[in-house]
Amino acid sequence: MRSSETNQPAVILLSGGLDSATVLAMARRDGFACHCVTFDYGQRHRFEIAAAARVAESLGAASHRVAQLDPAAFAGSALTGDIAVPKGGGGGGNAIPVTYVPARNLIFLSYAVGLAEVLGARDIFIGVNQLDYSGYPDCRAEFIAAFERAANLATKVGVEGSPCRIRTPLIDMTKAQIIRAGTDLGVEYALTRSCYDPDQNGLACGGCEACMLRRAGFERAGVADPTGYAGAGCKA
Amino acid sequence: MRSSETNQPAVILLSGGLDSATVLAMARRDGFACHCVTFDYGQRHRFEIAAAARVAESLGAASHRVAQLDPAAFAGSALTGDIAVPKGGGGGGNAIPVTYVPARNLIFLSYAVGLAEVLGARDIFIGVNQLDYSGYPDCRAEFIAAFERAANLATKVGVEGSPCRIRTPLIDMTKAQIIRAGTDLGVEYALTRSCYDPDQNGLACGGCEACMLRRAGFERAGVADPTGYAGAGCKA
Repeated sequence: MRSSETNQPAVILLSGGLDSATVLAMARRDGFACHCVTFDYGQRHRFEIAAAARVAESLGAASHRVAQLDPAAFAGSALTGDIAVPKGGGGGGNAIPVTYVPARNLIFLSYAVGLAEVLGARDIFIGVNQLDYSGYPDCRAEFIAAFERAANLATKVGVEGSPCRIRTPLIDMTKAQIIRAGTDLGVEYALTRSCYDPDQNGLACGGCEACMLRRAGFERAGVADPTGYAGAGCKA
Repeated sequence: MRSSETNQPAVILLSGGLDSATVLAMARRDGFACHCVTFDYGQRHRFEIAAAARVAESLGAASHRVAQLDPAAFAGSALTGDIAVPKGGGGGGNAIPVTYVPARNLIFLSYAVGLAEVLGARDIFIGVNQLDYSGYPDCRAEFIAAFERAANLATKVGVEGSPCRIRTPLIDMTKAQIIRAGTDLGVEYALTRSCYDPDQNGLACGGCEACMLRRAGFERAGVADPTGYAGAGCKA
């Protein structure tokens, strides 16, 4: 993949899901040369890594790398361990769900800060949002602001007066708003993957929290859901 | 390695160097069951990884793990890349040296926060100090405080009222004070490695910044320096 960009480099945290694909499209619209990074941290839903590569290519990323992170720190979650992924929305209200992965965005953003310094990028994009989200504490604006401050005290660029900026264009958007914005920017959502518990053919389960948020988002956005769901009668 | 601890678990960032060995000894003295983590991030001075394992064992750590982190984010430093390690103390005063590794402690601490949550540990020990140090921004108390705040906004334990604590017992100590404290606690400094540019036999160069700080520390502490230095006439 080559870039014809002459604009500023940026680092994009690209998971292969719907949100980060939309963020990449927004960063491209804003003229950034987008260097995407996807993490391989032992997640159960590894099909998102291949999806991220497809998304990066389709949206004209300047580069895409898959960074290996030792999975030890990410254990004890339904997304990485032996705990079953819950289905059907039976979560406990505002409680942090079992799909929470310890310190995930903290680690991902820290890695992105290092990568940004190496690449000479000041802007780091992450697709967190605090409305239609899953109750993860590391998706809140309060965390992002505190992280940005800490990061700029840790780095040469921060100390020398060129601080990094953590950009969260989705932070206050609903899932439906995100899907409409991405559709307007030409995001091919058929390439993205959200499911926490896909089957062996890479089809989404349709029942996990990520699938339910995604399905509801397409419905509310009035956009046809291109997701391949496993099992009869699961397709909306 | 087995632990007979009944006390609280803690995560110790163990580099294999002098400082973190001393920190481990302090955490053991304070009764913690010490789970040590050493990072393999493509560093030039990889002999520190084996040193860390020896140090962990000699000081009765409850566990020691080597965590692999994709080296892409750590590039562009004399410690990881093709830049030569400077010798002889010709650094630029207060400038950040070429041995600075982008966002290193930010990434290491973030990983430790995830690991601590997995292990049920609240305390994370890191051997940063802001006196006899190398001008790295991520060794300052101001960064550590900001990081701790961000981390506790990112994690389930932080949000639910059991915040992690980043412990920096060396933060205001000189290298000589660190060596004296560690000697009193029985640290075998012969097991530790500080050099940024060891030879093929694992002998310290004696001339890089880390060697110079280490040598001066032993001299000022009045403790015999057990370091194996390469070349004739280099041993203090």
